[in-house]
Amino acid sequence: MKKEKVVLAYSGGLDTSVILKWLENTYQYEVIAVCINVGQEEDFDAIKQKALNTGAIKSYVLDVTEEFITDYIYPTLKAGAIYEDDYLLGTSFARPLIAKKLVEIAENEGAVAIAHGATGKGNDQVRFEASIKALNPYIKLIAPWRVWDLKSREDCIEYALKNDIPIPVTKKDIYSRDSNIWHISHEGGNLENPWNEHDDTIYKLSVSPENAPDTPAYVEIQFDAGIPVAVDGVKYNPVELLTVLNKAAGAHGVGIIDIVENRLVGMKSRGVYETPGGTLLFEAHKALEKLTLDRATMSFKKGVSEKYAQLVYDGLWFTPLREALDQFVNSTQQCVTGVVKLKLYKGSCSAVASTSPYSLYNEEFVTFGEDDVYNQQDAEGFINLFALPLTIRALMNHNKDDKNKTDKKVI
Amino acid sequence: MKKEKVVLAYSGGLDTSVILKWLENTYQYEVIAVCINVGQEEDFDAIKQKALNTGAIKSYVLDVTEEFITDYIYPTLKAGAIYEDDYLLGTSFARPLIAKKLVEIAENEGAVAIAHGATGKGNDQVRFEASIKALNPYIKLIAPWRVWDLKSREDCIEYALKNDIPIPVTKKDIYSRDSNIWHISHEGGNLENPWNEHDDTIYKLSVSPENAPDTPAYVEIQFDAGIPVAVDGVKYNPVELLTVLNKAAGAHGVGIIDIVENRLVGMKSRGVYETPGGTLLFEAHKALEKLTLDRATMSFKKGVSEKYAQLVYDGLWFTPLREALDQFVNSTQQCVTGVVKLKLYKGSCSAVASTSPYSLYNEEFVTFGEDDVYNQQDAEGFINLFALPLTIRALMNHNKDDKNKTDKKVI
Amino acid sequence: MKKEKVVLAYSGGLDTSVILKWLENTYQYEVIAVCINVGQEEDFDAIKQKALNTGAIKSYVLDVTEEFITDYIYPTLKAGAIYEDDYLLGTSFARPLIAKKLVEIAENEGAVAIAHGATGKGNDQVRFEASIKALNPYIKLIAPWRVWDLKSREDCIEYALKNDIPIPVTKKDIYSRDSNIWHISHEGGNLENPWNEHDDTIYKLSVSPENAPDTPAYVEIQFDAGIPVAVDGVKYNPVELLTVLNKAAGAHGVGIIDIVENRLVGMKSRGVYETPGGTLLFEAHKALEKLTLDRATMSFKKGVSEKYAQLVYDGLWFTPLREALDQFVNSTQQCVTGVVKLKLYKGSCSAVASTSPYSLYNEEFVTFGEDDVYNQQDAEGFINLFALPLTIRALMNHNKDDKNKTDKKVI
Amino acid sequence: MKKEKVVLAYSGGLDTSVILKWLENTYQYEVIAVCINVGQEEDFDAIKQKALNTGAIKSYVLDVTEEFITDYIYPTLKAGAIYEDDYLLGTSFARPLIAKKLVEIAENEGAVAIAHGATGKGNDQVRFEASIKALNPYIKLIAPWRVWDLKSREDCIEYALKNDIPIPVTKKDIYSRDSNIWHISHEGGNLENPWNEHDDTIYKLSVSPENAPDTPAYVEIQFDAGIPVAVDGVKYNPVELLTVLNKAAGAHGVGIIDIVENRLVGMKSRGVYETPGGTLLFEAHKALEKLTLDRATMSFKKGVSEKYAQLVYDGLWFTPLREALDQFVNSTQQCVTGVVKLKLYKGSCSAVASTSPYSLYNEEFVTFGEDDVYNQQDAEGFINLFALPLTIRALMNHNKDDKNKTDKKVI
Repeated sequence: MKKEKVVLAYSGGLDTSVILKWLENTYQYEVIAVCINVGQEEDFDAIKQKALNTGAIKSYVLDVTEEFITDYIYPTLKAGAIYEDDYLLGTSFARPLIAKKLVEIAENEGAVAIAHGATGKGNDQVRFEASIKALNPYIKLIAPWRVWDLKSREDCIEYALKNDIPIPVTKKDIYSRDSNIWHISHEGGNLENPWNEHDDTIYKLSVSPENAPDTPAYVEIQFDAGIPVAVDGVKYNPVELLTVLNKAAGAHGVGIIDIVENRLVGMKSRGVYETPGGTLLFEAHKALEKLTLDRATMSFKKGVSEKYAQLVYDGLWFTPLREALDQFVNSTQQCVTGVVKLKLYKGSCSAVASTSPYSLYNEEFVTFGEDDVYNQQDAEGFINLFALPLTIRALMNHNKDDKNKTDKKVI
Repeated sequence: MKKEKVVLAYSGGLDTSVILKWLENTYQYEVIAVCINVGQEEDFDAIKQKALNTGAIKSYVLDVTEEFITDYIYPTLKAGAIYEDDYLLGTSFARPLIAKKLVEIAENEGAVAIAHGATGKGNDQVRFEASIKALNPYIKLIAPWRVWDLKSREDCIEYALKNDIPIPVTKKDIYSRDSNIWHISHEGGNLENPWNEHDDTIYKLSVSPENAPDTPAYVEIQFDAGIPVAVDGVKYNPVELLTVLNKAAGAHGVGIIDIVENRLVGMKSRGVYETPGGTLLFEAHKALEKLTLDRATMSFKKGVSEKYAQLVYDGLWFTPLREALDQFVNSTQQCVTGVVKLKLYKGSCSAVASTSPYSLYNEEFVTFGEDDVYNQQDAEGFINLFALPLTIRALMNHNKDDKNKTDKKVI
Repeated sequence: MKKEKVVLAYSGGLDTSVILKWLENTYQYEVIAVCINVGQEEDFDAIKQKALNTGAIKSYVLDVTEEFITDYIYPTLKAGAIYEDDYLLGTSFARPLIAKKLVEIAENEGAVAIAHGATGKGNDQVRFEASIKALNPYIKLIAPWRVWDLKSREDCIEYALKNDIPIPVTKKDIYSRDSNIWHISHEGGNLENPWNEHDDTIYKLSVSPENAPDTPAYVEIQFDAGIPVAVDGVKYNPVELLTVLNKAAGAHGVGIIDIVENRLVGMKSRGVYETPGGTLLFEAHKALEKLTLDRATMSFKKGVSEKYAQLVYDGLWFTPLREALDQFVNSTQQCVTGVVKLKLYKGSCSAVASTSPYSLYNEEFVTFGEDDVYNQQDAEGFINLFALPLTIRALMNHNKDDKNKTDKKVI
Repeated sequence: MKKEKVVLAYSGGLDTSVILKWLENTYQYEVIAVCINVGQEEDFDAIKQKALNTGAIKSYVLDVTEEFITDYIYPTLKAGAIYEDDYLLGTSFARPLIAKKLVEIAENEGAVAIAHGATGKGNDQVRFEASIKALNPYIKLIAPWRVWDLKSREDCIEYALKNDIPIPVTKKDIYSRDSNIWHISHEGGNLENPWNEHDDTIYKLSVSPENAPDTPAYVEIQFDAGIPVAVDGVKYNPVELLTVLNKAAGAHGVGIIDIVENRLVGMKSRGVYETPGGTLLFEAHKALEKLTLDRATMSFKKGVSEKYAQLVYDGLWFTPLREALDQFVNSTQQCVTGVVKLKLYKGSCSAVASTSPYSLYNEEFVTFGEDDVYNQQDAEGFINLFALPLTIRALMNHNKDDKNKTDKKVI
């Protein structure tokens, strides 16, 4: 009888190598290993081979970095979505894309199940599984960390030794990390006490602000309808552009945050994130919106950003609400075209200048002095009506207090 | 016949000195000059005398700095209210307090009108007048800049010369400024072109980041129910505390922003703001909320912050909605007690550590490994129901596409 | 010298007839009268002729009823926009369309100004003028009621007699009314005291509930992507469809509301509105969304509806925010296809049944009893994580109260 | 060895009687039966005795109807919280109160666990368990329907027969129902197909609209700070007041809804609810708010209502967010004092008149004609600034299109 197949989200690390074998041992599945390249630094050839060596019947490596940027990062950037005011969602929005690729391969290969190495305490299990359910509800989901008896790294090593799985020679990192072209996250270790300041040896993509150059750098980012298209006047494709910005920002220690966040599964956790180029993009994009969006749109869009961030964080990418929010956002971005100049210095990044052909900043109106375009006397009428609810309420209160006042002239 | 009285918001500068005389000349009012000290750097004795010299029948100087902090700044801090993501509302929330004092004096003195020096293009006219209407709708409002024929500083000087009004010997500042214990704002001059980077000689409360010390400083701020009560372990009264923080932050170039903002009166303007101590307070307060507020409360409070910021910016302080939002906020602040450690360095400020007796961060739950408190298998059920709407929608779509699939097992 | 032209929004009534002449007398304008047919009951030929008789150099009558329904009513219906929970915006969304037509004619005719008969206390002046400014900010706006010396109907009659303007023989209605194919509004008269119950002789489009038939009627409305396309199985064009529904609902006294509302200009007013067919459409559309939209989309869309209603009420139709909200809404409406059965009886209207090919109601999941699709044991895990923030907070509180409890098992 | 105790939420019906015995058989618990009277129609003495007969070591019946109204219903009424626009939350807000009483008894009795009869598909399991976890996270929760092997009513009857549990002689109702003083719900049976119109024999608290009197009835409800205190001028205590209103509304068929709703657990369900008196209270309260709340407060409160409704529906009563929302709401209710007259007729209920000492409706301002309080010319200035963002945007667009237009005068 033919064995059933499972698709495994494979990273080449100890955990997913153990899972690969465990799936064979436990379910008698044929395992198809899939490693998704979303821009993390890895030796993908070695990973591909390692999966085969560990027993996979097939091993895929897919580079989806550009799709990641254009279809997941840019919509989120345009939405201005930031989770809990700080987190630029670097891990969150990679998950639905990975899930989508796993489903595509599972469907092509006729696999009945998808397995992943996310634990039962984190957000990623939800993001993977919700995405898979949305795309194909008939695929079985396997999350070994929620099921098996292995409870620790030591248990995994023991399992690996028993099953001839190659064990990495490098010492286990004290931090748990996730990385892609947008960011790297660090959790665990001494971060688990929020009163500990994090150690600046933790950084992978940035120098520490103290080690950054003593002279500021300037970067000009050009946007077209909310999408970054050029840096310092040079057009780049999405992967190049983000790479250029990562390098510039990382060299100045820009884009490091250290936060306590609320996980979807109900607990708080603490993490350090490096998002060098992404931080530049968000900062510049915000400055350009301040120049080109009207007040009412900006204000309402904040609520959209908040909801968008929650959906992305919670793994609810493939939902009608996220799609509808995208339509709103795209409509607002039609005039978000122009250039923003950023100053990078010792860990901080500020938008110091901006310009746009669609700028709603109108010097004629704002300038003090005589002008034709604005009649200052209009302000009196404006204030009288704008504040009329306050006046009427005050009259109501005064009249209740003192009936004698009612004959007074009001405005 | 007895002359009527007007209360004038008096600063001692050229504009309000001219207004003082103009009120006498135009309306035959007796002018009561009132200078409100909200912590700006001024020679208040000289101002008091100057008003009398210019013709005021009475001259008040009121120090309301502590009331400003406790009744206007702290509620806004607790609310987390930031206008358009950046502006800490330094001018905005001083206006209703000044208005309130003007009304109190007007009522005590039996004045029929209140005059102010705000122009017809800005937010402050609205803030003053809306506040006065809310407090006493029977008082007449006079905004000379919207009424008289003087159109420029030159017109004012000419009027002053004709009317024996002392003219300041100092050269006119190229920037228009407003300052109090919380902040100083800078507008006008070369800022009126958003593509110009602002000149760092503009700063009044801060060194530029480049001139800040090469070594970071650390500041620990203690909060009690959302209110800052101590710095580095030392208890201070509100004025002292903010003074200490202003000094610390200003020395490291922290709290400078440069933004294009939407004025209430419909135009965009560009300003540079220094809010040194206030920036520390907002940063620390946010970090403490991340430790002590649950996710649902944090998320809903963001909408409250946004609305609160709009109300404050728009001068709608004395309104039922602002009062109701305060009640919401105060309820959320009961557990916002603890200490946050900030790192100040070259213009940036980061919360690097935090602790609270009400911390909802629970290391037992978040730690990876075996535990009693959390059953990882719960996650499967959670995900199945959390994602059930996605599953059901996917089934609906699949069934529409392919009736043969309906006999498959779903979850 | 050639005279300048003004376009006048002309209704044929006393007010706009007087305005027509007044514009000639006051500004020496040539007046182009424009009467916009948005479905109100009028003798448009007579109106056209009356304008010419009163002195207009040109007189337009434009039937834009279908455009009104498809481009203004349907987007608002899809948005679910209801002002202050009750008002179906009948007058509000007619104004931008009328303004658009006035601007088009003004541009074609080379007119320098547009005049309208709205008073200085209402919303319509804002809706007209904001729309015109958005479409062509170079056109001068004239609102005679805010400018001239005529203060009452009596003043207008006197002016008419002096200027040979025909005066309607009918007695002045005690109510101020506005009507179109969507609704009729009634204001003024004894409605100005909110403690007065309105008189049921007020109705123009409906019988009173007491006079409605003793037997309920049923109406089935079919929607396609949020747009009504058929009634009782018969396809209609938009004007026919709304006419059919108006008749059905009016016969059963359905769609009458009596409310106190907040005007944009800061005061409250009281009005009675009849919106017979529109009430059926909103009720049916809501029921169909309950069947086809997921919870998260429905909930977020409520905030969109609220904002949309404010924009429409405030005359902010031609704004980027309204356009962006439309894009959101259209995305949500893709599956709002199906049929809703309404029961009309004695003034009320209820959705009693609904069906859709995109229904997310899934009997398999909801049915009690054994099933394959839903594992009830999932609920335990779901609840444990869903309520984890409550658990952690309770533990925090208990631990603060009693350190001895910390060794207890939690979940 | 001493047996452990469990507290069981006991209704006297077949299910909880079987659970009582099953808890003894399965866990060797001593069972303490608790029946909470929240105003449903039951023979509570018989229920108390039946629990003892079935094996409970102790049997409580607690009448908490007044606490239910004052501490759960009234806060929700003041909040204006309605789930998905229609459902008045009758079952939802009873659950946390019942949970609270169960926890109190468990703590007093030293019980280690609480059991309930809610199924694994519904909302009530979440409401019970989330509430219990919030109040005492150390108590074990048992939901037999998620655990045992009994899958149907037939299984329960068989278990009852084997265990000498008295079986009700009445035929099983085809509908699943929940009732209390606020409402009764009906689910299941032929309602499970949303295309079926519900049968009007379903009603328990109301006549059908068709069977209601042919003459309308009027009811005047007086509120004091948002709380109903009198009907038709007669003061009542909360239980009396709701009873009076239930009778009045039920007699006119008022308060029946039939909806498809989104359950928290991810599926849609369909239900019919009767909420006679509650519907009158919500309608009257809304009308009084329209008279006494300003526009900004009303608009923001809508978002609060929506969130409040979600929290109540989801069983998140005992949370900091619900408490903070209550503080907001209470602040808004200070002036919600006055009388509303309702007309009840053939299934519908309309507020036909309202009055309040805090009314913000001001006839002086709204009346057309000459007046002292309002200067119509203010409207021009108001519109010019209110619409300035539209003007500036239009200028930007025109200037981009045609540079020649820039010399034109704007406003």
